[in-house]
Amino acid sequence: MVSENFKVTPWEVEGEVDYGKLIEEFGINVIDTKLLERIKKHTGGELHPYLERGIFFAHRDLDKLLDAYEKGEKFYIYTGRGPSQDMHLGHLLPFVFVKWLQDKFGCEVWIQISDDEKFLFKEKTIDQIKKQAEIDILNILAVGFDSEKTIIVSDFKHISVMYETACEIAKKLNFSNVKATFGFNNKTNIGAIFYPAVQMVLAVLPSKIYKKNILCLIPYGIDQDPYFRLQRDINEKMGFYKPVCLAGVFLPGLQGPTGKMSSSDSSSAIFLDDTPEEVANKIKKYAFSGGQPTIEEHRIKGGNPDIDTCFQYLKLFFEPDNAKLQEIYNNYKSGKMLTSELKIYTIKKINDFLEKFRQQREAIQPRVNEFLYSEEKINKNRKIYET
Amino acid sequence: MVSENFKVTPWEVEGEVDYGKLIEEFGINVIDTKLLERIKKHTGGELHPYLERGIFFAHRDLDKLLDAYEKGEKFYIYTGRGPSQDMHLGHLLPFVFVKWLQDKFGCEVWIQISDDEKFLFKEKTIDQIKKQAEIDILNILAVGFDSEKTIIVSDFKHISVMYETACEIAKKLNFSNVKATFGFNNKTNIGAIFYPAVQMVLAVLPSKIYKKNILCLIPYGIDQDPYFRLQRDINEKMGFYKPVCLAGVFLPGLQGPTGKMSSSDSSSAIFLDDTPEEVANKIKKYAFSGGQPTIEEHRIKGGNPDIDTCFQYLKLFFEPDNAKLQEIYNNYKSGKMLTSELKIYTIKKINDFLEKFRQQREAIQPRVNEFLYSEEKINKNRKIYET
Repeated sequence: MVSENFKVTPWEVEGEVDYGKLIEEFGINVIDTKLLERIKKHTGGELHPYLERGIFFAHRDLDKLLDAYEKGEKFYIYTGRGPSQDMHLGHLLPFVFVKWLQDKFGCEVWIQISDDEKFLFKEKTIDQIKKQAEIDILNILAVGFDSEKTIIVSDFKHISVMYETACEIAKKLNFSNVKATFGFNNKTNIGAIFYPAVQMVLAVLPSKIYKKNILCLIPYGIDQDPYFRLQRDINEKMGFYKPVCLAGVFLPGLQGPTGKMSSSDSSSAIFLDDTPEEVANKIKKYAFSGGQPTIEEHRIKGGNPDIDTCFQYLKLFFEPDNAKLQEIYNNYKSGKMLTSELKIYTIKKINDFLEKFRQQREAIQPRVNEFLYSEEKINKNRKIYET
Repeated sequence: MVSENFKVTPWEVEGEVDYGKLIEEFGINVIDTKLLERIKKHTGGELHPYLERGIFFAHRDLDKLLDAYEKGEKFYIYTGRGPSQDMHLGHLLPFVFVKWLQDKFGCEVWIQISDDEKFLFKEKTIDQIKKQAEIDILNILAVGFDSEKTIIVSDFKHISVMYETACEIAKKLNFSNVKATFGFNNKTNIGAIFYPAVQMVLAVLPSKIYKKNILCLIPYGIDQDPYFRLQRDINEKMGFYKPVCLAGVFLPGLQGPTGKMSSSDSSSAIFLDDTPEEVANKIKKYAFSGGQPTIEEHRIKGGNPDIDTCFQYLKLFFEPDNAKLQEIYNNYKSGKMLTSELKIYTIKKINDFLEKFRQQREAIQPRVNEFLYSEEKINKNRKIYET
């Protein structure tokens, strides 16, 4: 969607995003308190900050998912990653959320590594993409997924499992159907034109493999919504449940609340392998500040946490303690807390996270194969869906 | 190409085809006597009727293929079959010719079974197509290919071997590039749009697998020429030899010299499982006759073998003896041979062929797996290309 002040398409996010307008335009529902309370019933009263703080703020059929879950029906989560450039925090954090959902609901998580997509859409070789895919898989697994209930599907490696379904989907989509949604034109290569069908496979494949209609939950950045509306049509046409949508905001770039964190602009992103010094430097140099030009002015007027990148990062993820977050908010707003203090606090939070993350990554490295799609895994997991 | 009196595109053949015009339009070369003599040097002086009688009449780079072959370089043949309907004689005979080439030149033959294509382009289910594919593979193998040197690749079954290469090709073709050649428009499904890339894989895959630039010979009906011109561009762009083209006429339908034999019109085609009685009935009822309306008139004026379907069948394949063929020509033309006699002669020839074919098919049935793509086969065959 394109409005006067902002623009959100699957290809671009620009300007300050009005999520209220997006909800209206996309015809998606807000996750309200009632729904959050209902979720809490199944999570031991706990809510991930992403839900509590409205990072994932919109949905389609989440209520129906809970209806089914409460009747004993199992669902799975489908998410993915296109490996083209090094991952930054904005790429990783949604996986942390998905892991939380897996822990709470005991569900399978299917992760698609769309190496073919990145080869077809970017100026990269297959070898470059494959190398990146290996790095990305390791990063994703480092967040701590359950090896039994997590299945990684790499398009290049596992295409034989996916291709028939991709063709079935492709047969239901003509060039006109995908042109607008995916921004294609006559100069788009024919692999890219086919790719939407490959992307849609995992929203039906487990139902086909397990020979049972299984609900699929898809968390994604709201900018990807047009894809998943199409996905819902396709699932319905193929006789499967429409996937349940869980749409989130994007982690803003360091330079401020306009646009999302981007790998192609290294000064806007904190990468998973940035050293503590690099993180400190980036936050100090680039993190958009809601503070005043001078300390004196800041003490008098106070800062604006709502546009301050550090505060947003704390809110989005790095300060799970609500009371502490509120305290920081108040102190920054009143001028009691300086921008430099807020930055130092945030730097430490990010570096602590990254250090732990990297330790977990080292630990999981020898076990990557346990997570990759195999018939053996499928045969084991079939029992999850038996009632 | 579309002319006043006939039309030849990859989708349709209509009217009486002027092959001279096609050669000019497509920029392809006639296979002349000199080239035929050169081929005979390598076949023990023998020429398959398809070459001798101009059934395969045009080429690109066949001279270069012979240059390389004479220097000890090996080539392979790439051919294929889209399994959507029962095979008729017009589908089978090119494989008989390919088998002859394999016998004479000792070359590998790669046969693509484009089950995905037929699923994407026809109103059939994957199961229907797969069932047809099994039947077709058996029919193809019944012509007697060398099990060691023949590799069958079914797109659905072997996509994992092909997909990366298909994506590499796809990245070099945009919608505009394929639109005209393949007759696509905005209503074409996105699987069909991608399919040309899958179709082009086998003209480069063996070179990639064997890690050596290998010449590829592709025999095909002249109506498919636009595909293979595009294929030559792609091979060149990917750094491989352009495939060598060998273009043939089509086996005409029973109703006469306009159009080709078609599965969708059962009265125009003799199927491989037609009983001897069905063959006899079809020839008697539908085979377009070059004779006169009455026996008396035929005796006086004579018939026209050049437009007579039976005579054409004898010439195209079923009467390999040149002297005998000439005798029949003369006798029919003079009126000495009646249409009914010509038909009976042709019916016997076709039925003898089909009987022997079906015996061979029964014999090969338990051995189909020996012909299917496998890493083991590849590892064995690697030595063919070692110099």
